[in-house]
Amino acid sequence: MEYPYGQDPGAPIRSGVPEHGRIPKYYAAKVEIAALIQELGEGELLPAERDLASRFEVSRETLRQALRELILEGRLRRLGRGTVVAGPKLAQPLSLASYTEGVRDQGRTPGRHLVGLDRFPCPAALAGDLGIEAGDPVWHMERVLLADDERVGLESTYVAVERVPRLDTDFEPDSSFYAYLRRRLGIGFGDADERLETVLATPREALLIGTPGALPMLLIHRLSRDTEGRPLERVRSLYRGDRFSFTTHLGTPAG
Amino acid sequence: MEYPYGQDPGAPIRSGVPEHGRIPKYYAAKVEIAALIQELGEGELLPAERDLASRFEVSRETLRQALRELILEGRLRRLGRGTVVAGPKLAQPLSLASYTEGVRDQGRTPGRHLVGLDRFPCPAALAGDLGIEAGDPVWHMERVLLADDERVGLESTYVAVERVPRLDTDFEPDSSFYAYLRRRLGIGFGDADERLETVLATPREALLIGTPGALPMLLIHRLSRDTEGRPLERVRSLYRGDRFSFTTHLGTPAG
Repeated sequence: MEYPYGQDPGAPIRSGVPEHGRIPKYYAAKVEIAALIQELGEGELLPAERDLASRFEVSRETLRQALRELILEGRLRRLGRGTVVAGPKLAQPLSLASYTEGVRDQGRTPGRHLVGLDRFPCPAALAGDLGIEAGDPVWHMERVLLADDERVGLESTYVAVERVPRLDTDFEPDSSFYAYLRRRLGIGFGDADERLETVLATPREALLIGTPGALPMLLIHRLSRDTEGRPLERVRSLYRGDRFSFTTHLGTPAG
Repeated sequence: MEYPYGQDPGAPIRSGVPEHGRIPKYYAAKVEIAALIQELGEGELLPAERDLASRFEVSRETLRQALRELILEGRLRRLGRGTVVAGPKLAQPLSLASYTEGVRDQGRTPGRHLVGLDRFPCPAALAGDLGIEAGDPVWHMERVLLADDERVGLESTYVAVERVPRLDTDFEPDSSFYAYLRRRLGIGFGDADERLETVLATPREALLIGTPGALPMLLIHRLSRDTEGRPLERVRSLYRGDRFSFTTHLGTPAG
């Protein structure tokens, strides 16, 4: 079946060709490799760079640019010295449920590694968000997010020390913070405001998550309140853009 | 006030320095320019590349890499031959309201330019989403999204011809499609499922939106139903990652 402009709805990459028909060489190679990815299927090894370059009649440098984009987009991934076809992105629901629950629902094993837990006087910019006074003690907990032992994100949680006084001694940092709040302190989540954007990984983030530098990431800023409406935490969650997508169900707006 | 690891919650870019303290030269320049951006404020012209390179003691090539990242992230933008400090990203709510309403609520003037309107037999992959049979006629309408005359995105709408038979003659393509459905055909939106991810602009998309190639974009896939629960449209909306963020309010999950 033919579609206008090669606009097959199932093959968005073909729609990348401008109407004037001229495309950069690396992009032509990318389209060819994308077709090869479809043929091969998840987990299969891509032929060597040298062979691909000769097959598509491009230089090694041009071929590498095509591979780089496909890796940034999560369609390929490096495995040892080779390159394999990546699986689909995780589809994490935007919800008050925790990261842990979202990953588990997709049949993956969630995990977290503590990077650091610090206690410091709350800066003015953060105090309003947490419903405390500037200078009051606040926790900053930073954790690497894992799915099946793969590092996929980085999460920074800011919470007032008065809400969780024994976070440093009482909480197992590789477990769910939300489960801890609920079970140990009887704090339930009421609602949250989130803002989602795309940013580039900084060198520090790239090192912690183990990604190439300047990988496009999805960044979620969250401000949450408990069931009484009291401010609870400010969270900055950074997810690998090549490994995550986010889903939401929209109903009729109020009013 | 001092924060551990330079982790000032108001200055996330400072947290980009790894614990071992070594950072690439371009990133050191990026941090310096980010501080300069703060000083200058929105709309102000950045000093010439030559002057910045000499001030931060880096090569022109290194300086350009720093500028390139700040442009990709939407903190700087090109204006004629110069580079100016960009305004904040538009914060578009994830809701059933249209693009038009979201942009207008932020005090910007929304607009749309028609790229193409095609009618073709529905492929099998799309038929289920639209609640029609494969081969039934379907519209594909593609429009560039504008905010204050700036091109900011690209939207592809797929809708069954039987739902909107006179789309080609009856609809003003630079107006709101949702307002048209509501006012002219009495079709209201009931609910939608969305999936959001980050992708790189293809050469065609970059050309249509007028962005540098391989700019990180936010892509939203939408499947919507009318108030009776009948499938209505499939939409692929691509937004400039340097110009948009998306917001949502999360309530307590059902059950």
